[in-house]
Amino acid sequence: MKPLRVALLGCGVVGTEVVRLLNEQSDDLAARVGVPLELAGVAVRRPDRVRAGVDRELLTTDAQALVTRDDVDIVIEVIGGIEPARTLMLEAMKSGKSVVSANKALLAEDGATLFAAAREYGADLYYEASVAGAIPLLRPLRESLVGDHVQRVLGIVNGTTNYILDQMDAHGAGFSEALEEAQALGYAEADPTADVEGFDAAAKAAILAQLAFHTPVTAADVHREGITEVSPADVAGAKEMDCVVKLLAICERVPEEGGRNGRGVSVRVYPAMIPRSHPLASVREAYNAVFVEAESAGSLMFYGAGAGGAPTASAILGDLVAVARNLRGGTPGPVEVTYAKLPVLPMGETVTRYYIQLDVADRSGVLATVAEEFARHGVSIQAVRQVGLGEDAQLVVVTHRAPDAALTSTVEGLRNLDIVREVASVMRVEGED
Amino acid sequence: MKPLRVALLGCGVVGTEVVRLLNEQSDDLAARVGVPLELAGVAVRRPDRVRAGVDRELLTTDAQALVTRDDVDIVIEVIGGIEPARTLMLEAMKSGKSVVSANKALLAEDGATLFAAAREYGADLYYEASVAGAIPLLRPLRESLVGDHVQRVLGIVNGTTNYILDQMDAHGAGFSEALEEAQALGYAEADPTADVEGFDAAAKAAILAQLAFHTPVTAADVHREGITEVSPADVAGAKEMDCVVKLLAICERVPEEGGRNGRGVSVRVYPAMIPRSHPLASVREAYNAVFVEAESAGSLMFYGAGAGGAPTASAILGDLVAVARNLRGGTPGPVEVTYAKLPVLPMGETVTRYYIQLDVADRSGVLATVAEEFARHGVSIQAVRQVGLGEDAQLVVVTHRAPDAALTSTVEGLRNLDIVREVASVMRVEGED
Repeated sequence: MKPLRVALLGCGVVGTEVVRLLNEQSDDLAARVGVPLELAGVAVRRPDRVRAGVDRELLTTDAQALVTRDDVDIVIEVIGGIEPARTLMLEAMKSGKSVVSANKALLAEDGATLFAAAREYGADLYYEASVAGAIPLLRPLRESLVGDHVQRVLGIVNGTTNYILDQMDAHGAGFSEALEEAQALGYAEADPTADVEGFDAAAKAAILAQLAFHTPVTAADVHREGITEVSPADVAGAKEMDCVVKLLAICERVPEEGGRNGRGVSVRVYPAMIPRSHPLASVREAYNAVFVEAESAGSLMFYGAGAGGAPTASAILGDLVAVARNLRGGTPGPVEVTYAKLPVLPMGETVTRYYIQLDVADRSGVLATVAEEFARHGVSIQAVRQVGLGEDAQLVVVTHRAPDAALTSTVEGLRNLDIVREVASVMRVEGED
Repeated sequence: MKPLRVALLGCGVVGTEVVRLLNEQSDDLAARVGVPLELAGVAVRRPDRVRAGVDRELLTTDAQALVTRDDVDIVIEVIGGIEPARTLMLEAMKSGKSVVSANKALLAEDGATLFAAAREYGADLYYEASVAGAIPLLRPLRESLVGDHVQRVLGIVNGTTNYILDQMDAHGAGFSEALEEAQALGYAEADPTADVEGFDAAAKAAILAQLAFHTPVTAADVHREGITEVSPADVAGAKEMDCVVKLLAICERVPEEGGRNGRGVSVRVYPAMIPRSHPLASVREAYNAVFVEAESAGSLMFYGAGAGGAPTASAILGDLVAVARNLRGGTPGPVEVTYAKLPVLPMGETVTRYYIQLDVADRSGVLATVAEEFARHGVSIQAVRQVGLGEDAQLVVVTHRAPDAALTSTVEGLRNLDIVREVASVMRVEGED
């Protein structure tokens, strides 16, 4: 039986693991696909670097030549970033290869170009590894829930920030201190920007929203706030509310009177409080978990390790077997359909709730003045509580659900009130309906 | 565009929901498949019964004729049971139809015959709805983890028994009382045998084990113990251990020195204690959750509603879209491969741990005699604790891991000791390694 031949682009932590699994599991993979899978070549930038278990004969610096070689059937891309990954994947599909990728940044920025190429050349493009490591999430959304009507995806999809927030919650650490610890343990990179500013989570949110709502969504459409501004006061305030602060990726339909699809979708990433009784609250350390709410299926949760060489390689190998089977069958799998084309609504139109902590003057009539400011913006208050006395008095206000624009202008208005010394903490509240 | 036509076998709770979703979501489904899906006919036993939303013109009592009709492309089977479901599904595949089924009993008893027919006639046979309702579980095992090496599947896959055990845990109810409550609320059927005796969970365990280990497993291979013997004393004993009693479906490789596949697999269903800190411990009421441990992916958890009309219909529609896309592409999806053919080991060879509670005589040397009995069977004790004094003295013993055969013969030996008045509770302990 003629083997299917695989080209690997990139051989870092994930790539090395892919090579190891291809070698160690070759008998099992052959039985599952129906023909053997063979490594045809590995494109790297530095061929002299030692990579345990990787045959040096297979290394090449000419990725361009590798992806168009006649003896290559499937290309696995684990270089990451936009270029040259995009050009190489397009070239590969153009020459009839199937592609498996773990590249969330590229898929979220320019998935449309890649899907168009897949459609044009009848090639497979699978990318389960791009979101939440080995947790099966894209395939369930793409296939298991394809006959259902997804209402919301709510998840923790970045392990680095979850580790940092978990440390802040568990030990009262400040952001910088927790970040340093995460870096020391290898959970955060030397330049942590992509994680702590929410870029990584936003790319994943775009990919999830596109699949969930059959609507084109790019990373640029995603409202994004990172965790660098999360203070010990925010975390302590959450604790008093019996909540915990998590960086959430939220994709949801914005309801419409009488309409079923909603008048648009909201896709956003920000730190928010969720009740400790919510299943996402107990996701500790660098783990990931994603809630999916669908009309018929109800609430589903998917949980596991969201990153790391071996879990990411597991997702890649799953996709590899799938595209290999499709090649044997002679028919590619389904290409993403974004027929619904719902608008991605601006953050101001998204409906959410705020927790606001105010340092206020010790004066009579303070509560009335504050309440009036909320009313002026049409925001209704769910609960208010005064903490401390006299000069140390604080007001904690939790709102009902309101458009984010009204909530932010309320906060702006509060800042301008004489009796408000400081807006000490503002945090959205999610996970309760 | 020529529509794909669907025949439905059975129109009870799930079938009615399938019809409703096919109607309500027809535009979305057409966009996702590429062509419309049309209901061609519904086979029922009692055509005079009123079924909300089902066009009476479509009803027929001749299921046999329906599944072979030329204008039918896909058959959905929600009759349940072995016959006539098996014959109808085989006839359907023989006449070139794809089949979607929710029939766990049939798949677990005689899946091999059905898979052989699917292979012979090039037909699709999808059955996600047969295990854990809408929770995507079979597709992740079949496809997402197909490049990985699954070590263990550990789950709560029967909602009825979980509801009963949850009530016993939360309110100290006895089994009969909790069962009656479950029946009153519609969580348990008038004849609860299939649920409380573990038959339902055993069928699901067989299906999961077969997919996880690429090995033929039938319901008859599964060691099965139900929950009818679980007593308030067992539940109270678990509480004292900071554990909770759950009906678990466990599929795992039994390790082998130097071997990778294991010397066989163990597939079993029984009530067992798991620590309250284990994520499965917090699965309440009638929910389902399944842990999957794979070599590269690590631990994954899938959680959601495990039964009910709408969740089951969601899983069926997901499969329906998949087989419809395959029909359009002209290539069926992968058929189960059971190449590994690992032996299913008898329960006696399965390694587990026991919690044993003994009413003992008030006599010196009791502990020594009891300890000797464990030693005589080669079972080592992890912890022992005496509760109460004098005539009310009880010994609680928790063992280290040992073959089940040694553990059961130890219990037999204990029963025969003069100083043991009664073996008050015996329960396996899982979820800790």
